[in-house]
Amino acid sequence: MNLAIDVASGEKPLEELVLGAVNALAENNDINLILVGNEKSITKVLSKAKYDHKRVDIRHTDEIIDMNESPANGIKHKKNASVLMAARLVKDKEADGFFSPGNTGATLAAALTEIGRLKGVMRPPLISTLPKFGGEFCMLDMGANVDCTPDYMVQFAVMGRVFAKRYLKIENPRVGLLNIGEEDSKGNADTKKIFERLQKMKKINFIGNIEPNDMLKSDCVDVVVADGFDGNIVLKTIEGTAALVVNMLKAEVKKNPVSVMGGLMMKPVFTNLKSKMSSDSYGSAILLGLNGGAFVGHGKTSGVGMKNAVLNMYRFLDAKINEKIAKELYDSGAKRRIF
Amino acid sequence: MNLAIDVASGEKPLEELVLGAVNALAENNDINLILVGNEKSITKVLSKAKYDHKRVDIRHTDEIIDMNESPANGIKHKKNASVLMAARLVKDKEADGFFSPGNTGATLAAALTEIGRLKGVMRPPLISTLPKFGGEFCMLDMGANVDCTPDYMVQFAVMGRVFAKRYLKIENPRVGLLNIGEEDSKGNADTKKIFERLQKMKKINFIGNIEPNDMLKSDCVDVVVADGFDGNIVLKTIEGTAALVVNMLKAEVKKNPVSVMGGLMMKPVFTNLKSKMSSDSYGSAILLGLNGGAFVGHGKTSGVGMKNAVLNMYRFLDAKINEKIAKELYDSGAKRRIF
Repeated sequence: MNLAIDVASGEKPLEELVLGAVNALAENNDINLILVGNEKSITKVLSKAKYDHKRVDIRHTDEIIDMNESPANGIKHKKNASVLMAARLVKDKEADGFFSPGNTGATLAAALTEIGRLKGVMRPPLISTLPKFGGEFCMLDMGANVDCTPDYMVQFAVMGRVFAKRYLKIENPRVGLLNIGEEDSKGNADTKKIFERLQKMKKINFIGNIEPNDMLKSDCVDVVVADGFDGNIVLKTIEGTAALVVNMLKAEVKKNPVSVMGGLMMKPVFTNLKSKMSSDSYGSAILLGLNGGAFVGHGKTSGVGMKNAVLNMYRFLDAKINEKIAKELYDSGAKRRIF
Repeated sequence: MNLAIDVASGEKPLEELVLGAVNALAENNDINLILVGNEKSITKVLSKAKYDHKRVDIRHTDEIIDMNESPANGIKHKKNASVLMAARLVKDKEADGFFSPGNTGATLAAALTEIGRLKGVMRPPLISTLPKFGGEFCMLDMGANVDCTPDYMVQFAVMGRVFAKRYLKIENPRVGLLNIGEEDSKGNADTKKIFERLQKMKKINFIGNIEPNDMLKSDCVDVVVADGFDGNIVLKTIEGTAALVVNMLKAEVKKNPVSVMGGLMMKPVFTNLKSKMSSDSYGSAILLGLNGGAFVGHGKTSGVGMKNAVLNMYRFLDAKINEKIAKELYDSGAKRRIF
């Protein structure tokens, strides 16, 4: 399997990202990499690394779309931007999927314009796994589509179900609708309409409304459907709260010598927790419903995050999720894109 | 100041709630209580407590609106429900404000039907303080109005500003709009409209869009404006994430003896953190913009939570926030209710 990696547009140095990606090779023999970025810099980093040279290719570019640049502008004017080149490798069937830790809007735009949607898919949603106590669940849309119709969201439910079955290996995934109360009648005008529609979908194990506190605290749902605005709000609130709790703990620990000692003894605990909650573990989101794999990383993706991202790309693509989505959308009776 | 307290409809036993409320009396000599619930049970609890008998009154009722009952139904058919009786004491000017830790929908409905809105107020929003690193900020609407127009939300901004000035003692509060990106152009169709409207409000220190991770991690905003659906999603995500982090820590600690010991040494740290993050500290939300004080507690409100709620009611009512809101709404140029 060939994976295209934009190593040029993350916040971390190219060296860290290249080494992270190459580290994944030792853990999975089926992966080959195409690294996109400045060839000279990449070659220099690779010269210090141990790996099978036949498994890594480089595509040179010096153009990147900046974190703060308008995605539309970047996509239009920088035809050789690293993220666009990576996406184009998927379009041209040289790679099975691409990953970028750069400007999220630009990554989504590159995926949509270069790779394109599967037959029938209206709006590709971003899906991500999230931690819950004792496991993980998935949620979509995490931010690709901020204004959603009920039709889009019914499609999200179908796509999320395929993802949970094939990626999380859950036999009959429980699908819930993100809401502020669990009773059927709860929510705003939009969620009420979507609730009604989801209830009519016979091929989906729809368990009703799910509150965000319940989905994080307990094992009550496998797939949470939300519009891209609310999904992104939830994602960023989780990130902010986890950081707040950890910062508060650190500040409290410093207040007296006994807890300083206690904190030192608990260091492995904090490290472990940090890795479980960090975007390097759960942060790579996948744009579902395209004619190839598109993977969106956090700007802060580290070397470890890059390695995990590469391994997760393989896990996703190997499960043939997009291939299955086209068929399931058809079978489900969901309204499909016909133009 | 007279405060009406519904001690009958929380999840915790009446005894704990009564004692919690009475404990507040020792900390503030200006407070008198009117406890609403079963007279015999309340009298029995009070007989064991030490307090100034002249400062506590009882109103008997055996009717309560259950946690899982439809608020509309309860309000319509149970005229002597504890929450309605408590709200009626405010309407009849026997109390300055009321608090209920019961069914949230019923508490909101009781406040609206019995106490009524201030002149000009369209939709009273729920406001609450939330923890951020090194302080607190406030957010509204936390869930009273799930479908909001830009007009409502402009009013929320004005009301939130008054609250932050008088309750949090912030001279020129920074007002932000909850959104998924900080750039002016970010958000969905609704937030874009609201952004434009807020930018035109000259009397408000509007600092633009605020992402939930930033508002929790850093000191960047004092008042966050959101519709009731998103505000409630944020509140419940914070609650769920904090619980998840603490549960994960506990599970990790148990994995080896050194960290068990470390955990014991850090116990005061965890207790302190728990109290900072718990709904007993930040959980009592206030319905702004009424002709009296209406305070909504978490169903799980404990004795300590009840004591804090009573003291916070005084803090709010003493600051004359609702009185100021009517004038500020007029001065701000925000569209007002005219019918």
